[in-house]
Amino acid sequence: MLEQLGINAREAEKKLMIASTAEKNKALIKISEGLIAGADKIIEANKIDLKNGEENGMAQAMLDRLKLDQSRIEGMAKGVMDVVSLPDPVGRILDTVTRPNGLKIQKVSTPLGVIAVIFEARPNVTSDAAALCLKSGNTVILRGGKEAIHSNKIIAQIMRRAVKEAGMPEDVIQLVQDTSRDSANELMTMNQYVDVLIPRGGAGLIQAVVKNATVPVIETGVGNCHIYVDKDADIKKAVDIVFNAKTSRPSVCNAAESLLIHKDIADTVLVKIKEKLDEKNVTLVGDDAARNIIADMDKATEADWATEYLDYKMSVKIVDSVEEAVEHIYKYSTGHSECIVTENMDTAELFMNQVDSAAVYVNASTRFTDGGEFGFGAEIGISTQKLHARGPIGLPELQSFKYKIYGNGQIR
Amino acid sequence: MLEQLGINAREAEKKLMIASTAEKNKALIKISEGLIAGADKIIEANKIDLKNGEENGMAQAMLDRLKLDQSRIEGMAKGVMDVVSLPDPVGRILDTVTRPNGLKIQKVSTPLGVIAVIFEARPNVTSDAAALCLKSGNTVILRGGKEAIHSNKIIAQIMRRAVKEAGMPEDVIQLVQDTSRDSANELMTMNQYVDVLIPRGGAGLIQAVVKNATVPVIETGVGNCHIYVDKDADIKKAVDIVFNAKTSRPSVCNAAESLLIHKDIADTVLVKIKEKLDEKNVTLVGDDAARNIIADMDKATEADWATEYLDYKMSVKIVDSVEEAVEHIYKYSTGHSECIVTENMDTAELFMNQVDSAAVYVNASTRFTDGGEFGFGAEIGISTQKLHARGPIGLPELQSFKYKIYGNGQIR
Repeated sequence: MLEQLGINAREAEKKLMIASTAEKNKALIKISEGLIAGADKIIEANKIDLKNGEENGMAQAMLDRLKLDQSRIEGMAKGVMDVVSLPDPVGRILDTVTRPNGLKIQKVSTPLGVIAVIFEARPNVTSDAAALCLKSGNTVILRGGKEAIHSNKIIAQIMRRAVKEAGMPEDVIQLVQDTSRDSANELMTMNQYVDVLIPRGGAGLIQAVVKNATVPVIETGVGNCHIYVDKDADIKKAVDIVFNAKTSRPSVCNAAESLLIHKDIADTVLVKIKEKLDEKNVTLVGDDAARNIIADMDKATEADWATEYLDYKMSVKIVDSVEEAVEHIYKYSTGHSECIVTENMDTAELFMNQVDSAAVYVNASTRFTDGGEFGFGAEIGISTQKLHARGPIGLPELQSFKYKIYGNGQIR
Repeated sequence: MLEQLGINAREAEKKLMIASTAEKNKALIKISEGLIAGADKIIEANKIDLKNGEENGMAQAMLDRLKLDQSRIEGMAKGVMDVVSLPDPVGRILDTVTRPNGLKIQKVSTPLGVIAVIFEARPNVTSDAAALCLKSGNTVILRGGKEAIHSNKIIAQIMRRAVKEAGMPEDVIQLVQDTSRDSANELMTMNQYVDVLIPRGGAGLIQAVVKNATVPVIETGVGNCHIYVDKDADIKKAVDIVFNAKTSRPSVCNAAESLLIHKDIADTVLVKIKEKLDEKNVTLVGDDAARNIIADMDKATEADWATEYLDYKMSVKIVDSVEEAVEHIYKYSTGHSECIVTENMDTAELFMNQVDSAAVYVNASTRFTDGGEFGFGAEIGISTQKLHARGPIGLPELQSFKYKIYGNGQIR
């Protein structure tokens, strides 16, 4: 079913791979302008999606994510313009060596090729992902959820027209029109046409992709993030960091979900943290030791330790040592972001070296794991796998490389 | 079946991840010594494999690959010592930025974790792969072919004992004892325990892995390599490069398999190349234009263009332009190594920028695509995929990275 999209993507890739920065930026500017000019049409299509969502009993939070208004469309257009201002990642000389036999070997960044992005009900992903792929020289096949299909179709149409007006093949951006499970499964196994698959969405989507894809995948986004408050912690820092990491935006992947506290300071610290979290009505669940300190707390189940709540809820465990904290994180973490609060830099280094996650913090909120906060600019997601990209996936992470070797008749 | 190996590998990984360079080198030296000391036992076990191979009608070339004698075992031991002398890739600071809010973000190389290597009948892969994984801080699960199982078992036993003597958990190196297809399939889907799977072998094995694996894979080794002789080629260079790339070692992945010649110089060049290749009795098959020049040539079929012969055989096509050469390569290449022979640097750049392969050469033999020849040291294979590693997979390619973020109470 999707084979023609694959063929189109490969054909368009040949042009995009060698496009100049100016040509790509011109297309991005046209896309940004097109989104503004087409705002009315987008809002109209979005209303159909919202109506369908309401009729199907979609939850309010999800309806809110689905909704596009003038201001959100302007945000999407601005997001595309932000990508214009980022440096072109293609064709950078990463390394040069000259061998004793005179061969000059240049390592040069190149696009990955064709990127497929599978996402759910957030139509803004359509333009975000397309802009990042275009700038990084990759053609993109977008496959959004059925909940947003009317919005996605008009956004994709606008972007394709804009790209064409800029003199580039419109197939550098394609949208899968069929939103059945079959289309997602087919995309996951199109090894001949897809170089990388990036799923953007909840744990269910990510798991389905990892389980079914034969195409190389960059896993994103599931964050069961931990904060460990060490016995040598500064208590004020601990309270502020836990409060910020848990409550500043609970629905995102870099929000903290689990709190570990060293037994030596648990009595004091947990009470103060609880007091602060009460301001936002955060529900705590804990192990027996935590419940001995705070009576009004349900017992944490095995499932709790492994859960990314994405809500005003947090699990609490009292540990005997930094080693026990590391061991707990090893068992339950999704490898996204973890933090130790301590004034002891030896303990901090032990924690940061042994915890095997994309981002490991000492004395700062896990909420900083973000392309913008890291100074990388826009990102397509946060990778929680160890192959290729880890942490924020920005333009440089959407690159492969090749070796260009200059000889003068050398043989071996 | 293999779950226990996965659990063991993950447990051993915790120690290996933080092992010092000295500790790892000590283990490697013990392994090297152990191989020499155990040579008689290895040869004895290898004789069983050879006998079984002969009884099962194994081809002579394959029996030769399977065979271990004193000199080959010394070669394996020396290979391990070569890895001792390579720099430790773990813990290198790849980048440091300090953000306006004072956060210091360090990008640091880390091991990938658990690497599974599936290979065929070459028992030397057992020690090569184990040494590279150990030095790069990765535990390894080796799964060799049944043809070499007796040899592999004793080699693995020797290596595990050596590692233990050096004070490290022996499970940093594990061999799958079961050589059934089931064990390979299970290994390919052990996402919880295996971070990366590297297949080393022929096209059949690679395809099976790509098709069945849900674990992230680094594809290796299949090389349908092309040489394009441009109209502006130096004819002597063209003859020497084609001869070297085709005949210096036809059984390896960086050997050339297909020859494209610009029509303007085809008459002269093809005759000279044929004359030279006749010294090694290379069989040529070609398109009609090539057969008009060399009468004694079979017609190349569609399958020929796509075949990695790994033999004294080569396909020949006459093309109208560099663009047609690029297009042909785009269609049939496996993305390994391709070469243009030309004195025109504009044409060379066009070819090198548009051909999407791991290594693109101007005026040099494709046989140089090799970790040692690139100056990288030992390698575990040549990656032909674009995600994570491309070209020779040496120690730096067996690394992931993490971000270590140093704060002083920052919140967002």
